[in-house]
Amino acid sequence: MTSNPTFPPPRHATPELLAALQARFAEQFSTSQAVREQHGRDEGSTDAPPPDAVVFAESTQDVADLVRLAAAHNVPVIPYGAGSSLEGHLLATEGGISLDVSRMNRIISVNADDLTVTVQPGISRKQLNEAIKHTGLFFPIDPGADASIGGMAATRASGTNAVRYGTMRENVLALEVVSASGEVIRTGTRAKKSSAGYDLTRLYVGSAGTLGIFTEVTIRLYPLPEAVSAAICSFPSIEEAVRTVITTIQMGVPIARVELLDAHTVRLVNQHSKLSLREEPMLLMEFHGSPGSVQEQAEMVQAIAGEQGGQAFEWANTPEERTRLWTARHNAYFAGIQSRPGCRAVTTDVCVPISRLADCLLESLQEVESSGLPYFLVGHVGDGNFHFGYLIDPDKDEERTRAEALSHQLVARAIRMDGTCTGEHGIGTHKMDFLVEEAGAGAVAVMRSIKHALDPQNILNPGKIFTW
Amino acid sequence: MTSNPTFPPPRHATPELLAALQARFAEQFSTSQAVREQHGRDEGSTDAPPPDAVVFAESTQDVADLVRLAAAHNVPVIPYGAGSSLEGHLLATEGGISLDVSRMNRIISVNADDLTVTVQPGISRKQLNEAIKHTGLFFPIDPGADASIGGMAATRASGTNAVRYGTMRENVLALEVVSASGEVIRTGTRAKKSSAGYDLTRLYVGSAGTLGIFTEVTIRLYPLPEAVSAAICSFPSIEEAVRTVITTIQMGVPIARVELLDAHTVRLVNQHSKLSLREEPMLLMEFHGSPGSVQEQAEMVQAIAGEQGGQAFEWANTPEERTRLWTARHNAYFAGIQSRPGCRAVTTDVCVPISRLADCLLESLQEVESSGLPYFLVGHVGDGNFHFGYLIDPDKDEERTRAEALSHQLVARAIRMDGTCTGEHGIGTHKMDFLVEEAGAGAVAVMRSIKHALDPQNILNPGKIFTW
Repeated sequence: MTSNPTFPPPRHATPELLAALQARFAEQFSTSQAVREQHGRDEGSTDAPPPDAVVFAESTQDVADLVRLAAAHNVPVIPYGAGSSLEGHLLATEGGISLDVSRMNRIISVNADDLTVTVQPGISRKQLNEAIKHTGLFFPIDPGADASIGGMAATRASGTNAVRYGTMRENVLALEVVSASGEVIRTGTRAKKSSAGYDLTRLYVGSAGTLGIFTEVTIRLYPLPEAVSAAICSFPSIEEAVRTVITTIQMGVPIARVELLDAHTVRLVNQHSKLSLREEPMLLMEFHGSPGSVQEQAEMVQAIAGEQGGQAFEWANTPEERTRLWTARHNAYFAGIQSRPGCRAVTTDVCVPISRLADCLLESLQEVESSGLPYFLVGHVGDGNFHFGYLIDPDKDEERTRAEALSHQLVARAIRMDGTCTGEHGIGTHKMDFLVEEAGAGAVAVMRSIKHALDPQNILNPGKIFTW
Repeated sequence: MTSNPTFPPPRHATPELLAALQARFAEQFSTSQAVREQHGRDEGSTDAPPPDAVVFAESTQDVADLVRLAAAHNVPVIPYGAGSSLEGHLLATEGGISLDVSRMNRIISVNADDLTVTVQPGISRKQLNEAIKHTGLFFPIDPGADASIGGMAATRASGTNAVRYGTMRENVLALEVVSASGEVIRTGTRAKKSSAGYDLTRLYVGSAGTLGIFTEVTIRLYPLPEAVSAAICSFPSIEEAVRTVITTIQMGVPIARVELLDAHTVRLVNQHSKLSLREEPMLLMEFHGSPGSVQEQAEMVQAIAGEQGGQAFEWANTPEERTRLWTARHNAYFAGIQSRPGCRAVTTDVCVPISRLADCLLESLQEVESSGLPYFLVGHVGDGNFHFGYLIDPDKDEERTRAEALSHQLVARAIRMDGTCTGEHGIGTHKMDFLVEEAGAGAVAVMRSIKHALDPQNILNPGKIFTW
């Protein structure tokens, strides 16, 4: 079972540091209880005391100055974007200052000809897409929440259409980073590829603010697809739904989205959203491309699904129809949460090679069903990634223990199948043991020695990914 | 101009180390002059004394044992795959033992359902593709030379079809690595995506053997395309050829290959291969997909090219015809080299954002033409990457100086255009100053501190990427 790691004693902001921050940041600085509390919780299921203060950075210089001051006083700095982390990335587990970058939300340059854009880290993905709509381009990565681009880069986020467009790993080209000593460095260029030294961009992406703080992010854009078509389809069993996905991927169909709900989750969605979907395992799909290519993809997938007993295909080609079809997927999380008033969701995030997906899903479903815990299940199945939400009563320790045990069994299964404990949410505060189980002590020791080399004082978001 | 870096005094193998290696490796160990010399040169233009000895590793254990022995005697270890580096990656610039992994060329497991394969590092890309032909899958990355997969991963290699399939950065999923202390660690899993801690896989990919030695590499495979079509097309000017490429990329056409030769290089190829191609800038293209998609792509690109004055389109759909069409590209390097008997090519490798490609190419062409140095030019223009080969008489220092000056001007131009000094060949021994120019002293200091943390004795391929 995951143990909550034991953190070293917090290093709280001293009165001297607070005075220095007040002097430097004036109205960009707050110690109000409400502001601190708002910056001390995320969407996850773990709590921690709030940060000692919050600084609202408005420039790279602000970030560098804050880090220098914090370093001089040996106090942690915890970056904060949109607050949508699910794994406690923004918790002040060891005390310190929350660095809110949400005011750093400018687009620095759109390079439409190169399909790139450089933004400040606080811009949200929806703000970005709204602002670049006129270019005919879009940024596809969609983790569900309207996360900040900086936070998505820090978490190595992905979401529903990673199956076609990749994750933040593939889509961040370059970064401006403030180091633990307050120095501003640049990683990468706008060139599409490079063999120039160590791939610092990819090292910082997914480092959760523990190695440096992003102040600019250069990401890839894509042409808005000429045609988009969406479909839902029901299957007699999860196995047949998953087999449809596997064949689709193996045949190289460039499907843009393919999501799974199990029969139980469809039932929750029907209740929540007053729908009348067949209460059977369901795939939700989306195809992007030229009209001809979209039609070809749709026909291929329909044929593959037909061989697996897929039926009740419904198609949508306009944005409104697509939204209606995808309601089930969009509402699954809330349908789950609201099916048990007052509950909290312990969310899992394993990702396995697609050949093992059916086994992993079926064994895990059986386990959760016999545990008796309420749950929901959604999956980015084209990537082999799925999420259980175990719906626990937060006042019942026994339920949390049972959920953690299920989560650990699931992770152990995924690792046995050559998968990962986290496809897109990150390790954060709560999956450190899983990381050791997955990567081995040797690889975690390498990560730790990189952290020690780049942040010798351990002031950048300490207590995340691994203990010091 | 690039200065050749000053290397610290070599740390040569001591008689004690040689005796220990002889005892441990027996007939897998050699100090013969011929074997050492063969392992002391690559395809680049820089020379160094040969390694002190060569060990032919046959297993991960062999690699770990060699590294432990070398570490105990504080002597460098230099990994050697196929010897096809262009940047001196395998030179024993600071003395030491060459670790030849070419006997480690087994396929460990093909996971056709997941489109992955795990191999030992010494297998070459052609060996791999031959061995997996029966699965209907292939490994697309094609740097020209029949490089080893381990070497390609270490260099972050790419080549002609990276425009569609990405580079080694996108295609290595996981590694087994022997660390500087001889410990075996694993990075990554076979899951398609992960947010589990630092992205060690991407850190090791492109690290040129300076952070660890690869003993297993898990890479992505792709379904062999159902249809393949190739074409060549001539243009009135480079600008119009490049504009065709830019529009193709911007419109999201998933072109698999798009290569450029300038008029002068077409002339060299005509002379070399007795062809009668129009001596004008030429694009060579390849389209992969379903028959319908290939036809659609081809029609779109033909229309785009037509608007840019493209003419003399020739199409090929069978493998034999395609080979004939692509002869010009395949022979460009040799046509260049053989156009000046006894010459050596100083090869450049810049990569720029595609919007700057025409400017970068035209300014650089003008420069080389007015320099009077013989040259050839080929380009992976879909990625904004191109190579000049400056053909110098190796006995004339003045020509080398002139070539280095051209190379430096080209790199400075690429960096001004937000590009990189090396798209795919790596920094090696010879582009260290360029790396500092491109990444800045701060980013290089970060790289160096990672190196110091992971290889405190500096025994893993020292003197590459940056000085200690």
